[in-house]
Amino acid sequence: MTVVIAVPGTEKHARDLATRLGATVVTPEIRQFPDGEVYVRIDADLANHEVVLVGSMHGGDKFLLIAFLAGTARDLGARRVGLVAPYLAYLRQDTRFKAGEGVTATYFARLMSSTVDWLVTVDPHLHRLDSLDHVYSIPTAIARAATSIATYITSEIEHPILVGPDAESVQWVAAVAAVCKAPYQILEKTRRGDRDVSISAPSGPWNGHTPVLIDDIVSTGKTMIEATRQLRAAGSAPPVCIAIHAVFADAVNDELVSAGAKGIVTCDTIPHVTNKICVADSIADAVRARLG
Amino acid sequence: MTVVIAVPGTEKHARDLATRLGATVVTPEIRQFPDGEVYVRIDADLANHEVVLVGSMHGGDKFLLIAFLAGTARDLGARRVGLVAPYLAYLRQDTRFKAGEGVTATYFARLMSSTVDWLVTVDPHLHRLDSLDHVYSIPTAIARAATSIATYITSEIEHPILVGPDAESVQWVAAVAAVCKAPYQILEKTRRGDRDVSISAPSGPWNGHTPVLIDDIVSTGKTMIEATRQLRAAGSAPPVCIAIHAVFADAVNDELVSAGAKGIVTCDTIPHVTNKICVADSIADAVRARLG
Repeated sequence: MTVVIAVPGTEKHARDLATRLGATVVTPEIRQFPDGEVYVRIDADLANHEVVLVGSMHGGDKFLLIAFLAGTARDLGARRVGLVAPYLAYLRQDTRFKAGEGVTATYFARLMSSTVDWLVTVDPHLHRLDSLDHVYSIPTAIARAATSIATYITSEIEHPILVGPDAESVQWVAAVAAVCKAPYQILEKTRRGDRDVSISAPSGPWNGHTPVLIDDIVSTGKTMIEATRQLRAAGSAPPVCIAIHAVFADAVNDELVSAGAKGIVTCDTIPHVTNKICVADSIADAVRARLG
Repeated sequence: MTVVIAVPGTEKHARDLATRLGATVVTPEIRQFPDGEVYVRIDADLANHEVVLVGSMHGGDKFLLIAFLAGTARDLGARRVGLVAPYLAYLRQDTRFKAGEGVTATYFARLMSSTVDWLVTVDPHLHRLDSLDHVYSIPTAIARAATSIATYITSEIEHPILVGPDAESVQWVAAVAAVCKAPYQILEKTRRGDRDVSISAPSGPWNGHTPVLIDDIVSTGKTMIEATRQLRAAGSAPPVCIAIHAVFADAVNDELVSAGAKGIVTCDTIPHVTNKICVADSIADAVRARLG
């Protein structure tokens, strides 16, 4: 038997996943003591069950809560405890760029690996690392959003041309293009700081197409905003922006529209008002493979 | 060589400790990415050095930061990495009171034990556990605030009578009484919830004395406030309240004064405006014993 446990904020994911797995959903009791410490209780029979925790790791601030739920599930007799983190934090700093820097990708993965038995995530932000296995010592599996994004584009956008705002985005853009059989173009980006980027767009291929800007993470939105400006300056129609992980504040949609975009649409890996693309099928496939 | 690394918010502790150990203080570079993830950098030569991280764990929200600093120090060649947590979180839930509850004391201690090589803390809130060794697998040492508190009482309060607001406080009160040779009295407390307590005080021994209420942790302040009310109702002079760990909001001092106390004075384990009692000597002794 499989039991899905929802970390607060990801109840919808937990229900979507449990439906697909034919599993039960359990909502844990979680409260804070007056001094900020967290109390957890799982009021369910977990003895010899496969337990699947569902919780996005946006910002990493849910780490202790997930570790406490995993520990509780184990104490209650769970056979294995896995984590579905639709968004996985701490993949950015995967090497030492400057003397003395902490390689937080390694430290975070080591802690997570000591906490759960396996991990499933959606399109993690891997660039220098070519696999989660370089930092995670537990079995991991990656669910891909490409098919869900391609389905959305095919049903909602006429004559799309997919656009990657920078070289790193080619992996997401090419995968979506392969499914929806649309042409694609990758722009060139120069980064001058956490919040400062410049992008150049060719004047070529926009005529008669709707550009669909695709990236894995939108955070400050600066890359998407600058790409939108350059596309419009190069004569394109208003682009539709698509992000897999909505790591951004609500204002970013307005800023994109001001820059000349139609707006932004996201996958539902982080709960956000712009979520339009459900990736539950892909997550359920990856979890089924894990549970064996 | 010993290097003391200050976690933000505990720079004073780090300096106090380094002075007593003849060690260098290093302030790490810590910043947040726009998405909330933390960046850490330690710009110092740590090769073959003993590294002492200093950081209070109030609420537990510094756990990832401490784990990242420990990982970085190790990568930079530190011989051992220890943690001085003047206040140690997650000792409250040390058993399962109700079916399904997580025993967070165990889970938190396991994570900390995988993160640093040794731990020093000041008067941890142990009640059912009689030693940190029941939950921590690394070497631990406890620094005691009793001598510093007794010194404060002897120099600042005439004719003190020490008062413990409940049975659990007897360990702190008796230790202080033994050093400053003052009489003491323990009150009786009944707890009806996280924020709801009743206390009864005898009318006996208050004449001509200043009651000194002593507890390890003051959080909502409800216990100290109720004890103050009952002491005053039993005819005592305005009590002085002393807490080891100031886990409370600023308003609690005003509430204590309204209830009839002179005010509250705390040890400096958690930075707070009421800190008057420095426990650095005791911490330094415990760290010296650890470093051997």
